[in-house]
Amino acid sequence: MSDFTRKLFKAHQACPDCPSPQAVHQYFEQLMALLFPEYTLEILRSETAVQAGLLRLEYELEQLLLRNKHLVSTPASEVVATFFSQLEEIYDAIQQDIDAMYAGDPAAKSRTEILRSYPGFYAIAAYRVAHALHHLGVRMIPRMLTEIAHSKTGIDIHPGAEIGAHFCIDHGTGIVIGETTKIGAHVKIYQGVTLGALSVDKADADKKRHPTIEEGVVIYAGATILGGKTVIGANSIIGGNVWLTKSVPAGSKIYYQSKMYDASGDVSDVYVLKT
Amino acid sequence: MSDFTRKLFKAHQACPDCPSPQAVHQYFEQLMALLFPEYTLEILRSETAVQAGLLRLEYELEQLLLRNKHLVSTPASEVVATFFSQLEEIYDAIQQDIDAMYAGDPAAKSRTEILRSYPGFYAIAAYRVAHALHHLGVRMIPRMLTEIAHSKTGIDIHPGAEIGAHFCIDHGTGIVIGETTKIGAHVKIYQGVTLGALSVDKADADKKRHPTIEEGVVIYAGATILGGKTVIGANSIIGGNVWLTKSVPAGSKIYYQSKMYDASGDVSDVYVLKT
Amino acid sequence: MSDFTRKLFKAHQACPDCPSPQAVHQYFEQLMALLFPEYTLEILRSETAVQAGLLRLEYELEQLLLRNKHLVSTPASEVVATFFSQLEEIYDAIQQDIDAMYAGDPAAKSRTEILRSYPGFYAIAAYRVAHALHHLGVRMIPRMLTEIAHSKTGIDIHPGAEIGAHFCIDHGTGIVIGETTKIGAHVKIYQGVTLGALSVDKADADKKRHPTIEEGVVIYAGATILGGKTVIGANSIIGGNVWLTKSVPAGSKIYYQSKMYDASGDVSDVYVLKT
Amino acid sequence: MSDFTRKLFKAHQACPDCPSPQAVHQYFEQLMALLFPEYTLEILRSETAVQAGLLRLEYELEQLLLRNKHLVSTPASEVVATFFSQLEEIYDAIQQDIDAMYAGDPAAKSRTEILRSYPGFYAIAAYRVAHALHHLGVRMIPRMLTEIAHSKTGIDIHPGAEIGAHFCIDHGTGIVIGETTKIGAHVKIYQGVTLGALSVDKADADKKRHPTIEEGVVIYAGATILGGKTVIGANSIIGGNVWLTKSVPAGSKIYYQSKMYDASGDVSDVYVLKT
Amino acid sequence: MSDFTRKLFKAHQACPDCPSPQAVHQYFEQLMALLFPEYTLEILRSETAVQAGLLRLEYELEQLLLRNKHLVSTPASEVVATFFSQLEEIYDAIQQDIDAMYAGDPAAKSRTEILRSYPGFYAIAAYRVAHALHHLGVRMIPRMLTEIAHSKTGIDIHPGAEIGAHFCIDHGTGIVIGETTKIGAHVKIYQGVTLGALSVDKADADKKRHPTIEEGVVIYAGATILGGKTVIGANSIIGGNVWLTKSVPAGSKIYYQSKMYDASGDVSDVYVLKT
Amino acid sequence: MSDFTRKLFKAHQACPDCPSPQAVHQYFEQLMALLFPEYTLEILRSETAVQAGLLRLEYELEQLLLRNKHLVSTPASEVVATFFSQLEEIYDAIQQDIDAMYAGDPAAKSRTEILRSYPGFYAIAAYRVAHALHHLGVRMIPRMLTEIAHSKTGIDIHPGAEIGAHFCIDHGTGIVIGETTKIGAHVKIYQGVTLGALSVDKADADKKRHPTIEEGVVIYAGATILGGKTVIGANSIIGGNVWLTKSVPAGSKIYYQSKMYDASGDVSDVYVLKT
Repeated sequence: MSDFTRKLFKAHQACPDCPSPQAVHQYFEQLMALLFPEYTLEILRSETAVQAGLLRLEYELEQLLLRNKHLVSTPASEVVATFFSQLEEIYDAIQQDIDAMYAGDPAAKSRTEILRSYPGFYAIAAYRVAHALHHLGVRMIPRMLTEIAHSKTGIDIHPGAEIGAHFCIDHGTGIVIGETTKIGAHVKIYQGVTLGALSVDKADADKKRHPTIEEGVVIYAGATILGGKTVIGANSIIGGNVWLTKSVPAGSKIYYQSKMYDASGDVSDVYVLKT
Repeated sequence: MSDFTRKLFKAHQACPDCPSPQAVHQYFEQLMALLFPEYTLEILRSETAVQAGLLRLEYELEQLLLRNKHLVSTPASEVVATFFSQLEEIYDAIQQDIDAMYAGDPAAKSRTEILRSYPGFYAIAAYRVAHALHHLGVRMIPRMLTEIAHSKTGIDIHPGAEIGAHFCIDHGTGIVIGETTKIGAHVKIYQGVTLGALSVDKADADKKRHPTIEEGVVIYAGATILGGKTVIGANSIIGGNVWLTKSVPAGSKIYYQSKMYDASGDVSDVYVLKT
Repeated sequence: MSDFTRKLFKAHQACPDCPSPQAVHQYFEQLMALLFPEYTLEILRSETAVQAGLLRLEYELEQLLLRNKHLVSTPASEVVATFFSQLEEIYDAIQQDIDAMYAGDPAAKSRTEILRSYPGFYAIAAYRVAHALHHLGVRMIPRMLTEIAHSKTGIDIHPGAEIGAHFCIDHGTGIVIGETTKIGAHVKIYQGVTLGALSVDKADADKKRHPTIEEGVVIYAGATILGGKTVIGANSIIGGNVWLTKSVPAGSKIYYQSKMYDASGDVSDVYVLKT
Repeated sequence: MSDFTRKLFKAHQACPDCPSPQAVHQYFEQLMALLFPEYTLEILRSETAVQAGLLRLEYELEQLLLRNKHLVSTPASEVVATFFSQLEEIYDAIQQDIDAMYAGDPAAKSRTEILRSYPGFYAIAAYRVAHALHHLGVRMIPRMLTEIAHSKTGIDIHPGAEIGAHFCIDHGTGIVIGETTKIGAHVKIYQGVTLGALSVDKADADKKRHPTIEEGVVIYAGATILGGKTVIGANSIIGGNVWLTKSVPAGSKIYYQSKMYDASGDVSDVYVLKT
Repeated sequence: MSDFTRKLFKAHQACPDCPSPQAVHQYFEQLMALLFPEYTLEILRSETAVQAGLLRLEYELEQLLLRNKHLVSTPASEVVATFFSQLEEIYDAIQQDIDAMYAGDPAAKSRTEILRSYPGFYAIAAYRVAHALHHLGVRMIPRMLTEIAHSKTGIDIHPGAEIGAHFCIDHGTGIVIGETTKIGAHVKIYQGVTLGALSVDKADADKKRHPTIEEGVVIYAGATILGGKTVIGANSIIGGNVWLTKSVPAGSKIYYQSKMYDASGDVSDVYVLKT
Repeated sequence: MSDFTRKLFKAHQACPDCPSPQAVHQYFEQLMALLFPEYTLEILRSETAVQAGLLRLEYELEQLLLRNKHLVSTPASEVVATFFSQLEEIYDAIQQDIDAMYAGDPAAKSRTEILRSYPGFYAIAAYRVAHALHHLGVRMIPRMLTEIAHSKTGIDIHPGAEIGAHFCIDHGTGIVIGETTKIGAHVKIYQGVTLGALSVDKADADKKRHPTIEEGVVIYAGATILGGKTVIGANSIIGGNVWLTKSVPAGSKIYYQSKMYDASGDVSDVYVLKT
């Protein structure tokens, strides 16, 4: 028996009996399948089946939470009961997000298309579920949920972020929304947008490190907005590739500007609002 | 029986019997396995097996299309027959894309490596299949196909885009190619490139909203080219991070320029062509 | 029997019996499951099981390599023996990377969270395994391994890159690290960072085409560093979105600068260091 | 397209959309798993899970029945509701059968051993479920259920048979209990017992063709009892290998007799009661 | 490395690369699924699918045979081509067997019920397929096929036996039909019937060791007929439990006789024809 | 929540955490796959793989035993260590049984055919493994193992029986070998043989209730030998269908005798030795 074998063995013994990424993934897919029939292989043909599905999901969540005491401080059964009492609300919120994505993308032909092929839908759904669990004091699992969506969509939303209703993401790949971000209702963001921190010191872990985006704001592709004190005023439009570390008032339109150099050496300015 | 149960039940009944994302994914993987043996676990050792595989795929596509009348306006059998009569052409086109990717990347050691490990290959293959179906009037499924590739590769190509032969993508993550984009032959693009729209109004859904890239153009990482009237002339080179909303003539070389500030406050210009 | 059937049949016969992407993926997941119990469904409860697992992985790697003679020039059994003699070292290196990621992200609540939900962990682990195999002269498989991680995380590290200890990646999506990159110890990089080449000519395939990052460097989100002769001196900080094609001395702090235009036409400068 | 292909195609189109043997098997295994935790991989840890399981089974049975109108004359939902209202009774009856098997076999160490390793338990459980469905007018499925048990255990009980409480089967292989058999409470039978018909004319399909076994009867291995008018009176003991086509009164002890010839030509009688 | 490890390793190396029982089982189930839609989960909805299915089965059989040269003396492709040219005939023969089973059992409500729940159907289908392969000189696989049916049904028919059209088996468990048995058309047999050998010497392996059953014979449950020279003349009826080692002329009716002893010591004769 | 739900829930809570039939089945199939490569899909190509397989099986057996304290009175690890130290001996014994079956059946073309298609092989292998575990004081699991074989083969051997080397079973269906049976070396039995008890009182559970068969005995099909004091002397031959409840000396040849009645009323004697 080599030292390495022994080392790995110790690691296995020391591993808290927390649900693995695969188990959490599987749970989420089952939840999605029940809530959004367009997304799944099985369309349920009776209320009994829906009821059975909800009860089963309730049970399985409790089992996931029970596997490790330190995942929740309140009893698992209480957490699960509260979460399922909120599930309709979460569902309705995701439906509103779908509405927003349908309204916001000229290429979208139907709500069904959003459900079947928009990464934004998947990422927001995972976030809304994860956020509710996070709010109920569940540790680890919410983060795993949004990472599942990150892996699938390239959209990385921390479950701690606060995101208002009618949230719209288009394309999505490369979006990062940090832990202490606050986003109002009817906000729309595109691929490559970062809502990030200016500081990465462990000591600042408990502070608000990420920006506040007020309602009705649109943030175009590749824009970066940084800092816990940065507030984007309501209904502002942040142009593609804009880099912001300071607050802007409501109704601002922030342009990205670049110079374009052609091979002959001529220079021209580029101003961009939308992308 | 709670109200929520009833609500979900209604949603299940209202769900059109369209193939789920999983079903479409599985179909595409089977198609890939037949066309590209390097990609699959099963290498077929007789022509009979290949023929059986093609017939089976023909059947399964028809089943997918038949599950929902409104997916196609022409009879499913006609669509399927036409698609399979075009499959060799699609296959040849993907082979040319592989050639282009092999020629265009110094790190590529063989064509086999492209097939086995290049996200660009997967995304282009999915696009070429999806585009052909889109062209035949199939709804929803083409979009689901390219989203499967988007999820796997970070490359988001709308099936409506028109892309010429010998298309080369390197690295790929973060690429967005919009619905009405037109791309000529022998074009090469890198990670983070967006070929996008300037307008996102639903009213503009039927207009050409995305740029035209003429043949032989190279677009380096992070470049953004926007607008339905924007035309990149043949054989132009668009430098990394360039932001373009206006047309450039054939043979243009567009540089990205940035200033670099060091800690002492010194400033120097950065001109970049290639990335 | 159509011409196309015959063409596909020939392609199947010509396909080298190299492991498919699925086979390599499966192998890697099994390796991860053994090394990192937090990552897996099965926690092993005896040293015997760990030993059995290691032997089994040794065998399966040999089988993968044996399936195609030209994957390795030295005998498969030798390569496998050497790789497994190095596995503890690889494991320890990944543990140090986890330490670095935990220390470097205020949002990380525990090392376990890194293992369960950080794409950076997965990408680095895949790289360290792939790099060791690459170093032993194994062809194709290392590249497939890092592409598996690329697909899952959006982080694209070439197995040929040389990366020092305590490497930290945060968020990750959109990172590209090229084949001839050299990275020192204690380096930290964020999403959207490219360490790329200035030249993409096949003729330059054997040259050093990607930059050198010395120890202790931090590179913030979206920064692009290009060229085989570009050296980022030790402990430099490269700000978000910075674009670098020239070397900078040790201790440099390179800022990104942008101008912000608001709707009224006012302009202000933006200097950013961290993101 | 060959004639044979066309013939098979027609057979597929003509096939009533009745659940396949596999589907019925799967359903039964799920039912067993819920009712008898000793039998299954999943022990349910909350009442919610049990309730969810019952509802799910209710739904799936309805789906099985709905797949083909002519499986039931009354509405599927009614049949399902009635069956599930009787399920507790069926469950209790199977528990009593387990009691009888435990009491009746000296080799049985515990009731758990019966559940985990007695073919008699499986066959009786399948019969009791099948019989209830048969009684509710369900066609085909009950017969498929008992055939599943026949395949697994070698015990072939027709769902139409009437079997009283506390039924005990030991070993079991080779038992046949015909469609119109009536068996009282506390009956015990061994391997190779046939309760069969004397007539196999289609014209007699609606008549009572199989025997009546009154309460408390024991029938030892290999005995054969035939005919619709044959009645084995209460508490009789039918010895091994006995062949009976006539009624016997209550309390009979029927012996099998054979002559034993040894190689030297000597003959001796063998009387056997128990086996 | 222990001696036992080495011993097992040698056994693995010495094992001819013959298809395993599982592989043969899987093949047979696929064949059954195509031929008998009542038996399977997938009903094919186009001729294309049926054609694809047949080609696929043709390919897979060739692969099974190719895995070990000594399984066939003629080229695998020839064997496969001949077998598939005979498949319609085999199919028609099985259909006639189903007719015979439907006509012969008063409890059978429809031909569909035979397909879905009669072990006799499964065993005969496996035999007819196995016999055709056996006849084509395929070794080992035919025997594995009929053993699959033996395991599932308790009916053990050697692939070498010659069985005429319209063969009917009822209940089935415990039937043994030996290698050199010859059975005419319209024969019917019940559970527990043995058509066996009188000699079990290896030296007699090439002789006819099992009986000949002429057309129209009925053999009731538990009867045993032994010996290569034993001929049961056409249209004979062999009663239940009869033990025969000599030929009987056409039209014979052979009764089983037994004495019944009750507890009081009374004796009565039992004559039985049918069971 | 209904009473029945609550009742089932209680049953689930009360269920000892003993391995389910499925888990034990899976374990046995893995063991068989390692010991007998002819039986499995995976042929191992290195000693490392064999060693890994043995260690893994050792681990999994320990896990099965650990799941329920009352399965073993000695520590699980001790039981497992002893069992694996005996495994080579068990393996050798099964090899001898295969030899005996090959020698004993004229229809057997090779030892490989025995492994791939003889139910006797499977049943004896399961018995030899089960018996060793039974002997080490393991409860429940040995009984489940032989029942797995019973279900598959129709051969029911109690793990408590003592069976000598070179044991041969042909056809097999319907064989029962009771708990306290003792069988010497080189014994051969056919289908339908019962070695059973005369008493079935619980009070006799600890007595020897089943016969003793000395070495070299052959027992033909359908013979029944009963009683704990019944001893079949060495090298005896027990004819088919013989019914024995008394001891016979060594070298006995016991014939079955029957009268044959034909339709005309003629009677003739039937003497049978072999079947």
